[in-house]
Amino acid sequence: MQIAILLYDRFTALDAVGPYDVLGRLPGADLAFVAVEPGPVRTEQRTLALTADKALSEVPHPDIVMVPGGFGTRDLFDDEAIIGWLREAHEHSTWTTSVCTGSLVLGGAGLLDGLTATTHWSCYDALAGTGAIPIADRVVEHLDRRIITAAGVSSGIDMALRLAELLVDDTAAMAMQLMIEYDPQPPFDSGALTKSSDEVITRCAEYSALRS
Amino acid sequence: MQIAILLYDRFTALDAVGPYDVLGRLPGADLAFVAVEPGPVRTEQRTLALTADKALSEVPHPDIVMVPGGFGTRDLFDDEAIIGWLREAHEHSTWTTSVCTGSLVLGGAGLLDGLTATTHWSCYDALAGTGAIPIADRVVEHLDRRIITAAGVSSGIDMALRLAELLVDDTAAMAMQLMIEYDPQPPFDSGALTKSSDEVITRCAEYSALRS
Repeated sequence: MQIAILLYDRFTALDAVGPYDVLGRLPGADLAFVAVEPGPVRTEQRTLALTADKALSEVPHPDIVMVPGGFGTRDLFDDEAIIGWLREAHEHSTWTTSVCTGSLVLGGAGLLDGLTATTHWSCYDALAGTGAIPIADRVVEHLDRRIITAAGVSSGIDMALRLAELLVDDTAAMAMQLMIEYDPQPPFDSGALTKSSDEVITRCAEYSALRS
Repeated sequence: MQIAILLYDRFTALDAVGPYDVLGRLPGADLAFVAVEPGPVRTEQRTLALTADKALSEVPHPDIVMVPGGFGTRDLFDDEAIIGWLREAHEHSTWTTSVCTGSLVLGGAGLLDGLTATTHWSCYDALAGTGAIPIADRVVEHLDRRIITAAGVSSGIDMALRLAELLVDDTAAMAMQLMIEYDPQPPFDSGALTKSSDEVITRCAEYSALRS
């Protein structure tokens, strides 16, 4: 079972690594981080690089395609190497998936036309611009179209557990949840726009502007 | 505010990257991944490398020290470069922290003697062997000793939000929670040993043996 996680300049690390530490541990998983060219790829924060071990051309037909989000997604719409790979890969994949603004790239490749999909809460309009119908669910799946999109950043963990169920069984998904001790106990309840005060939303925008 | 996240051969990626995507976005954060020598460092799954941008010797006195867990922790107890750095760093740090079996390394450095602390659910005995008193809480903090330990893998996200509160304020923590859309909705409720069936625990052990 070949799993390809796409890297590109200015991706969000947690979008990619949450699913990695769930899916890569499944039996038979042959997981690779892929990019246009192999080598280190910097996150949007710039203070970390993850290594892409393989070029896109080496992994043309993975069973699972995973596209993380990040500020860099905006530069991918005209990147024919990535968009072309994604279209071709989706022709053959079992599941084509995204986390956060990774769905904008799926949309940019024409894979979400007329489909409900999700993304980071700040990017519903951008997602709609690709032809998708944005909804605020945490994980949105179209089993008939083999496409699953997840909401912002940390939601990739929830999606990966669902994928583990689809790929193996519910015991496998629960075993992975136990392995990563995913028994969330956040000290606040501010993880969604509808749960956040104006003060928190303003602060979030300030911090985001610092880093984008 | 200098933040150092330790990398070593066979660490767990999510242990490190969960806190990274929270703490690295705080205003004034000067975050670096550090290792004995700079360069790519492989995870326990081997299919990913994160780049350590700085050598330990370049960051002797970070404000925040973060030690992720991983199968590789067992090789660190006799690694004087790491243990010595950790002892020295803790003399000066604002907070010395760990995720998962990273607490075994803190314990190995003698920082947890007689203190309650936590780790991955499978490693309480090993943690006790370092002189700590293991408890099953998700985040265990000793404000007077400037030490915080978190449970398995994904718990680093919860700890990082608490750190954001301690370092800035509760609005900052909630803003970071919103930024990473951390509104967990796992499809199962099997993230703790007490919530898992024997079948799930057995499967977890099987998958773990495949990768260790």
